[in-house]
Amino acid sequence: MANMNENFLKLQDNYLFSTISKKVNEFKQNNPSKKIIKMGIGDVILPIPKSIIEAMHNAVDEMGDISTFKGYPPEYGYQFLKEKIVENDYKSRNVSIDETEIFISDGAKSDTGNILDIFGNNNVVAIPNPVYPVYMDTNIIAGNKIVYIPMNRENNFIPELLEEKVDLIYLCFPNNPTGTTITKTQLQKWVDYAINNKSIIIYDAAYEAFITEKNIVHTIYEIEGASKVAIEIKSFSKTAGFTGLRCGYTVIPKEVIGYTKNNEKICINKLWARRQSTKFNGVSYITQKAAEAVYSEEGKQQINKNIKFYLENAQIIRSELEKYGYETYGGINAPYIWVKTPNGLSSWEFFDYLLNEKCIVGTPRKWLWNRRGRIF
Amino acid sequence: MANMNENFLKLQDNYLFSTISKKVNEFKQNNPSKKIIKMGIGDVILPIPKSIIEAMHNAVDEMGDISTFKGYPPEYGYQFLKEKIVENDYKSRNVSIDETEIFISDGAKSDTGNILDIFGNNNVVAIPNPVYPVYMDTNIIAGNKIVYIPMNRENNFIPELLEEKVDLIYLCFPNNPTGTTITKTQLQKWVDYAINNKSIIIYDAAYEAFITEKNIVHTIYEIEGASKVAIEIKSFSKTAGFTGLRCGYTVIPKEVIGYTKNNEKICINKLWARRQSTKFNGVSYITQKAAEAVYSEEGKQQINKNIKFYLENAQIIRSELEKYGYETYGGINAPYIWVKTPNGLSSWEFFDYLLNEKCIVGTPRKWLWNRRGRIF
Repeated sequence: MANMNENFLKLQDNYLFSTISKKVNEFKQNNPSKKIIKMGIGDVILPIPKSIIEAMHNAVDEMGDISTFKGYPPEYGYQFLKEKIVENDYKSRNVSIDETEIFISDGAKSDTGNILDIFGNNNVVAIPNPVYPVYMDTNIIAGNKIVYIPMNRENNFIPELLEEKVDLIYLCFPNNPTGTTITKTQLQKWVDYAINNKSIIIYDAAYEAFITEKNIVHTIYEIEGASKVAIEIKSFSKTAGFTGLRCGYTVIPKEVIGYTKNNEKICINKLWARRQSTKFNGVSYITQKAAEAVYSEEGKQQINKNIKFYLENAQIIRSELEKYGYETYGGINAPYIWVKTPNGLSSWEFFDYLLNEKCIVGTPRKWLWNRRGRIF
Repeated sequence: MANMNENFLKLQDNYLFSTISKKVNEFKQNNPSKKIIKMGIGDVILPIPKSIIEAMHNAVDEMGDISTFKGYPPEYGYQFLKEKIVENDYKSRNVSIDETEIFISDGAKSDTGNILDIFGNNNVVAIPNPVYPVYMDTNIIAGNKIVYIPMNRENNFIPELLEEKVDLIYLCFPNNPTGTTITKTQLQKWVDYAINNKSIIIYDAAYEAFITEKNIVHTIYEIEGASKVAIEIKSFSKTAGFTGLRCGYTVIPKEVIGYTKNNEKICINKLWARRQSTKFNGVSYITQKAAEAVYSEEGKQQINKNIKFYLENAQIIRSELEKYGYETYGGINAPYIWVKTPNGLSSWEFFDYLLNEKCIVGTPRKWLWNRRGRIF
């Protein structure tokens, strides 16, 4: 008799964004003539910049010619792309990352979900509250013990060290969903904590390209000691409008160490390499050529223009909301605006109000006050 | 202290194909002038057919235009592709599969690996011997109990029911690596076994397009009762030369049922849907447009021509090997030829002989005689 993973039954019936999508489709069917402003799923709207389009056309042609056709991609990504990442995302910030420490993937969400494959089942996992749902849901599926790191108005969205000892720590800055950031000094505390407690930080830097202020790191490896304890996950989705193309990467420095139950050291880079070569087969050549073009001079200019557009939008949303008396956060180093719902409305009630009355799709998020993984 | 998944330590150091690749690169460095015939990794060599290339160019242009740009793809695949699959791969064979039973992915290897996420950890798992390494390695990583289904010269490569009761059964026909197939009657036995024992069959049909003989099913759902117990995994990699593009799909009919420990029924389709929406973000629009073009009249003709070419190659290899007295199997309904190593050589010894003496890269596979998951 085939036994199923019963942890799935502890999840809410639907993944947050699937529920939003369902509600929006229902609204569309009932109101076919109304124009909706969609900000629900955190998707991009600007087309892929021209230099990247050209790179893809060239790559498509290569795939159609026997002399340039490419079969299975290298399982951890093409050298040409990894070199560009090392140079532009790390070396330029005085961070030393080797190409063998970079793993190209079909997106940050896949990596964020799959990373738990390499961890044992005795870890206490700390996730920010409010949370990007993937952190929580994947840990529920894995049956891990979850504790929450409060990030709210009371602590100015700055995650503080927990009293309870934790082994795995998810941090995301600029933050999804609040749009807030923390300083170097504040992040240093977490890195020091991880070093002292032999914990691992999973650092989600998907929104790094939106940082406009100083004293905010673009990569966690700018923090002293982070290359001993941090895995960094990055995405081209928001940086370069790749949500429909699917590409991201994960960085695991070779000195990041995990442990067996008998306290023996394990190189986490090696474990992830084995995971990826066993359960993943690399990213389309065409997509990797697109990602490479992100780092060309032309590509950089076009992307920066798009990012500026999204940040301007965020400013408009924020200042208009404030005009109407809403309490707002974020939008300065991130595309996201975090809004306090008015008049004690729940986040789904406010979502419904925005959709039904204003034809605007937001993302309902709430404060999770139960520490055992269930959202109320 | 971050605990790691110690099951990884039970794996061989390297995934089979990574080891082959390493040996070939070493040989190349030492013999830069020698031309190598590569048959190691089961890759394709013909470029992507013209009609598919055109479809990708069009899709790239759509991604560069704000009026046609596509962001996040639907998490289970675009409707336009699922419709084509239903029509061409199932309806045409009198098999009734609904679009909501199809999940588009970035390749059969990912699905084959990730599918274990939805199963519990008390299953006895049966995998064919010899084996596509992903079945074995992913089950070792998950800590599952593995038993082997012998497929060898003695039983004419026909898997027989095991004495031990099993819960999860991997079958792959046309078979990787032996290239052999079984009849409808033989496959019916496994489906009946699964129905009687509430087991689940994971059916890998990646090589279905190479079938030339009658009485061999193209999909397991041609077998009576299979839609109650079988998950089918398919790939565009070998069918249409997509190894470098990454696209496949998994079919889970809604009547496929798994169980909780308390014997409650669980709809497996629903669990996989939740797994994919939580840990995966869909496949590139461009790639899905390429896959759609596989089913156009032009696409079908071009692909059939390529498949014929690979099958002719297989025939040449097989007849030449037989001329020199080698015992061979497969190559009639599959691109693979299975060769008995001569003079008692081990498979890696024969691999080295072929590489060093003949500049040919084969794939070393061996009979696994230890039932506890370790290869000798």
